[in-house]
Amino acid sequence: MAVRAAVAGASGYAGGELLRLLLAHPEVEIGALTAHSNAGERLGALQPHLLPLADRVLEPTTAEVLAGHDVVFLALPHGQSAAVAEQLGPDVLVVDMGADFRLQDAGDWEKFYGSPHAGTWPYGLPELPGARAALAGAKRIAVPGCYPTAVSLALFPAYAADLVEPEAVIVAASGTSGAGKAAKPHLLGSEVMGNMSPYGVGGAHRHTPEMIQNLSAAAGTPVTVSFTPTLAPMPRGILATSSAKAKAGVTAESVRDAYAKAFADEPFVHLLPEGQWPATAAVYGSNAVQIQVAYDEAAGRVIVISAIDNLAKGTAGGALQSMNIALGLDETTGLTTIGVAP
Amino acid sequence: MAVRAAVAGASGYAGGELLRLLLAHPEVEIGALTAHSNAGERLGALQPHLLPLADRVLEPTTAEVLAGHDVVFLALPHGQSAAVAEQLGPDVLVVDMGADFRLQDAGDWEKFYGSPHAGTWPYGLPELPGARAALAGAKRIAVPGCYPTAVSLALFPAYAADLVEPEAVIVAASGTSGAGKAAKPHLLGSEVMGNMSPYGVGGAHRHTPEMIQNLSAAAGTPVTVSFTPTLAPMPRGILATSSAKAKAGVTAESVRDAYAKAFADEPFVHLLPEGQWPATAAVYGSNAVQIQVAYDEAAGRVIVISAIDNLAKGTAGGALQSMNIALGLDETTGLTTIGVAP
Amino acid sequence: MAVRAAVAGASGYAGGELLRLLLAHPEVEIGALTAHSNAGERLGALQPHLLPLADRVLEPTTAEVLAGHDVVFLALPHGQSAAVAEQLGPDVLVVDMGADFRLQDAGDWEKFYGSPHAGTWPYGLPELPGARAALAGAKRIAVPGCYPTAVSLALFPAYAADLVEPEAVIVAASGTSGAGKAAKPHLLGSEVMGNMSPYGVGGAHRHTPEMIQNLSAAAGTPVTVSFTPTLAPMPRGILATSSAKAKAGVTAESVRDAYAKAFADEPFVHLLPEGQWPATAAVYGSNAVQIQVAYDEAAGRVIVISAIDNLAKGTAGGALQSMNIALGLDETTGLTTIGVAP
Amino acid sequence: MAVRAAVAGASGYAGGELLRLLLAHPEVEIGALTAHSNAGERLGALQPHLLPLADRVLEPTTAEVLAGHDVVFLALPHGQSAAVAEQLGPDVLVVDMGADFRLQDAGDWEKFYGSPHAGTWPYGLPELPGARAALAGAKRIAVPGCYPTAVSLALFPAYAADLVEPEAVIVAASGTSGAGKAAKPHLLGSEVMGNMSPYGVGGAHRHTPEMIQNLSAAAGTPVTVSFTPTLAPMPRGILATSSAKAKAGVTAESVRDAYAKAFADEPFVHLLPEGQWPATAAVYGSNAVQIQVAYDEAAGRVIVISAIDNLAKGTAGGALQSMNIALGLDETTGLTTIGVAP
Repeated sequence: MAVRAAVAGASGYAGGELLRLLLAHPEVEIGALTAHSNAGERLGALQPHLLPLADRVLEPTTAEVLAGHDVVFLALPHGQSAAVAEQLGPDVLVVDMGADFRLQDAGDWEKFYGSPHAGTWPYGLPELPGARAALAGAKRIAVPGCYPTAVSLALFPAYAADLVEPEAVIVAASGTSGAGKAAKPHLLGSEVMGNMSPYGVGGAHRHTPEMIQNLSAAAGTPVTVSFTPTLAPMPRGILATSSAKAKAGVTAESVRDAYAKAFADEPFVHLLPEGQWPATAAVYGSNAVQIQVAYDEAAGRVIVISAIDNLAKGTAGGALQSMNIALGLDETTGLTTIGVAP
Repeated sequence: MAVRAAVAGASGYAGGELLRLLLAHPEVEIGALTAHSNAGERLGALQPHLLPLADRVLEPTTAEVLAGHDVVFLALPHGQSAAVAEQLGPDVLVVDMGADFRLQDAGDWEKFYGSPHAGTWPYGLPELPGARAALAGAKRIAVPGCYPTAVSLALFPAYAADLVEPEAVIVAASGTSGAGKAAKPHLLGSEVMGNMSPYGVGGAHRHTPEMIQNLSAAAGTPVTVSFTPTLAPMPRGILATSSAKAKAGVTAESVRDAYAKAFADEPFVHLLPEGQWPATAAVYGSNAVQIQVAYDEAAGRVIVISAIDNLAKGTAGGALQSMNIALGLDETTGLTTIGVAP
Repeated sequence: MAVRAAVAGASGYAGGELLRLLLAHPEVEIGALTAHSNAGERLGALQPHLLPLADRVLEPTTAEVLAGHDVVFLALPHGQSAAVAEQLGPDVLVVDMGADFRLQDAGDWEKFYGSPHAGTWPYGLPELPGARAALAGAKRIAVPGCYPTAVSLALFPAYAADLVEPEAVIVAASGTSGAGKAAKPHLLGSEVMGNMSPYGVGGAHRHTPEMIQNLSAAAGTPVTVSFTPTLAPMPRGILATSSAKAKAGVTAESVRDAYAKAFADEPFVHLLPEGQWPATAAVYGSNAVQIQVAYDEAAGRVIVISAIDNLAKGTAGGALQSMNIALGLDETTGLTTIGVAP
Repeated sequence: MAVRAAVAGASGYAGGELLRLLLAHPEVEIGALTAHSNAGERLGALQPHLLPLADRVLEPTTAEVLAGHDVVFLALPHGQSAAVAEQLGPDVLVVDMGADFRLQDAGDWEKFYGSPHAGTWPYGLPELPGARAALAGAKRIAVPGCYPTAVSLALFPAYAADLVEPEAVIVAASGTSGAGKAAKPHLLGSEVMGNMSPYGVGGAHRHTPEMIQNLSAAAGTPVTVSFTPTLAPMPRGILATSSAKAKAGVTAESVRDAYAKAFADEPFVHLLPEGQWPATAAVYGSNAVQIQVAYDEAAGRVIVISAIDNLAKGTAGGALQSMNIALGLDETTGLTTIGVAP
């Protein structure tokens, strides 16, 4: 029996990617597609790559339109998910691809997002310790941010195995789709091509408290995070370089062992063979995570490189993976580890 | 019962794309993977996006290795397919993704390729008139060139409907993967990014006689082709602008009607709604062809724009589509019209 | 004695490029810089590459601000130049980088731009026959469009030498800066990277009548133009492929001779050695034009490839070149034929 | 009287950029241009953007060819500069753009480069404390590596002012020209476009000891460096994110003050206004360095972002700046702080 899914916010990049993946999901039937300013338009005009849905017309994002589905995905601007979710009833699986329900600490939320905290939902990063149990049967899921996905997977094994000090330093490069589809001058092709630039430097990026939350949980102690995001001249992908000072006794072997164990049974996270490094192009369009670790003895640090597709594993693929778990489906249903390259 | 397929030339871009698609084909089991200079290497080191095949080791391209398969795909340098095909026996389906068996005229072959003509196989562009009949049950298939795919689909309806004069003018832009994976200075990222440049200008490109062959067949009279290929700063995609002088009495409506009819039942070729133009990004990774037509009354020309993924519909996807027909499978099996965007 | 120059529209791409070139012009002193919605802002925030002007503040575009200069450059939205120019007095050199005064035919203007025709000014493409005489001492200059610059230089020698039929077919690829700095969704980096797409197909692009005007003048007879512009994934550059049917008796040699003669004394137009093809990267940031010609005997066409930097020779460099002529300076003052590559 | 300059290694990216800059240097006359495998070729075929030198023919790199110049620039593979320099005599200014004479410690050299140490020359990063004095009148100059240029300028003020702990963490993104012009598969446009990937992770990159040398000198104590370089999909530019733990008592103001003082009189290093971040596009083709600092109180770290053009300030521009000092010319002669953007 098909799972009937609605997508609120189907005209943006996250919504488009979700639809791309849902079209390939054998258990899902795509129901209502909604949008705000684009309501009334053909999807073919907005998402021309989704040919099978080209003639679908976007509806307004209302409780009536979203009613009658088994799953409702929310790809809305932050702060808007709670109001919609409330109207959907407790038996509908609501998967929020926005930030609203990710943070446990209301103070963090208010500091970084400037609005009242809506609550905390089960966190949709299944690879984190304990996450799958919380997701199984859940009716509400908070999909992680794209950067926190790349960074938490990179560092939680080091913290869980007590290999590194609780001060993480992270620099990540993201493709421009992470900044969304709203037209802003600094996101014009003329501006971003041939250009690398940072933003949200010095702890200002909203994904920082989410990383702290995940890494502190893994470490069992508060972890500080210095996070610098940069915008890279490519449409998709996140490459994160995450590092922390090694604790005494750590060796290259102990680091590698910890990561090999952490991901041994993970269907989507691949610790690459030694000598091979993650590349965003290799995970383009896929739900795979490429990880590689290094121990720099001279500098005394463990360095972890991770590559994801920010729209796939970093947003829509992660959402689908968690939906599968919540619904009792095989976790990998409709998802792939095969990238589109070159 | 699975179709067992071998791929000769699995380390290149065409071979890699074919494997990506074969992994998603429900009826195919991937057998031997061979290479020349890369024989002995892990596929994961050469095609890091194909995670499910990462631990497969490339074998040398020999008759022994390729024996025992239902289908053998050849992604070899031109001139090498005949020798391999001969050793495979008449009952094996051999799909040549190289140029060797595309041209009917031996003189054309010798002029453009400088070696003896190996013969002519059924031509794997199913959308051309009569092509499907020739492919059904075939044991040998010549996959079209990427440019001829984009251009022949763009112009054959105009010639078949006698709308235009037999002098076609074509300018096409291709992503760099069309130039292959061999390291050449002018294909370095430093050279191609931020750069557009032509090559093979003035009738020198090897795909020219193939276009002439296809368009002349559609027109029932010899068609001349002025073809200018250009290299665009993107990894994939072909955007072709094809035009010809309109015959008397042609109108915008008659042009549109001819194209609507030509592609009404085609699963992969989409004549876009008026006002929407093809974009290579919309067909990235998919087997879809986007087409749009215009009649420029002032200039007296019919202009047709087509967009394909050069590696998918232009090579590996086209190969698979023809294989499906040859084997009696549904033509769309394992193929998608959904692109990966943005 | 320095030429004092004002720039109206200094916050956009054309204005920024003009300022970049003016900073290197030994005879020019940069005066007022104006803008519309950005008035009051630091130039450093809008044009961060122009460090020597970083602390200049943009003023509103008024006659008062623009008064007291020897030269006023207008980089305004089309339709706005006439009103500003009228207020500047007949002795000030006004160089309009917009379209307002390019076309001779009022009907063409109204058809393509939808507003009343403002008039016709001396046309700032010095390489065209007779252009330098009209520019010498001029007080009003209409800078050509970027595409017409690339295309007119490519084809006027063939028409002037009566080598080709009066039906030109042109396909050109432009970098995204040609579309300006206003934020529009289809110009986002996420949309344009990895993408080629056409626009204004079928004779709809506003540069079409300008090309017709130039080529018809060179031919001495009306020339039709089929022009297809495409958007390429690069910030700058135009690569134009222009062709026309060869007249009887034309040979590769006669074509090459005509072009060698036409450009023998031109400081900025370079007919490349045989075997070398234009590339936009080679003229990045420079005022140079790279040209190569081919005669395709089989197709019976002359094909001309031209590469320019759309912002430099195609807009701001061309403006400066014409200013030099108008002011009696050496035409090449402050301009370079050296590109920035790779 | 003109300075006569020869360039050994004129066919590569560093050599080409040096020639681009030398063409604009009012005191320099370009003499012999040499190459190894490209000797005998026209420069126009190899560096098509350098139109004024298009007809120059490359000579072999011999002492005879290089004799008779005031300055000889060496853009050779590492390990080859010493043998050439020895033959040039002590009165010729030799500027080595390779690595051979950068490191003071022979053990570091041997460990990272695997060949005997050739010696140490005055280090051509004028902005470092004491560097200008060592360069004035020098006859031998070692041009810094591109990454060490970006990183040393970013961090030396923090170390000189004793603001941070001696453990630096650096992640930098470089354009592909930094990897040179030799054709290697992983540098193909098809591979690098749309892709971010690291290399030399864990302390393996050869620029690491050079950074340690510079930062330790500034700190007056040994500094450890964790350096992760990444390859970005752009031809030029380095964006470096450098950070270190703040010492007690550090504030955002004290950090900013230290940087404002360090660069107050520097012609090429620009501490951006607060709120504006460095971007590689803004320094494209220029000798400028953009710097911005942040103090992340929560993480307890000082973060410094720097952007340079790896070929300009990072190689050829830096070489010219040091040459100017050595020859007693104004340090900024022939150099610009104006980038080419967009």
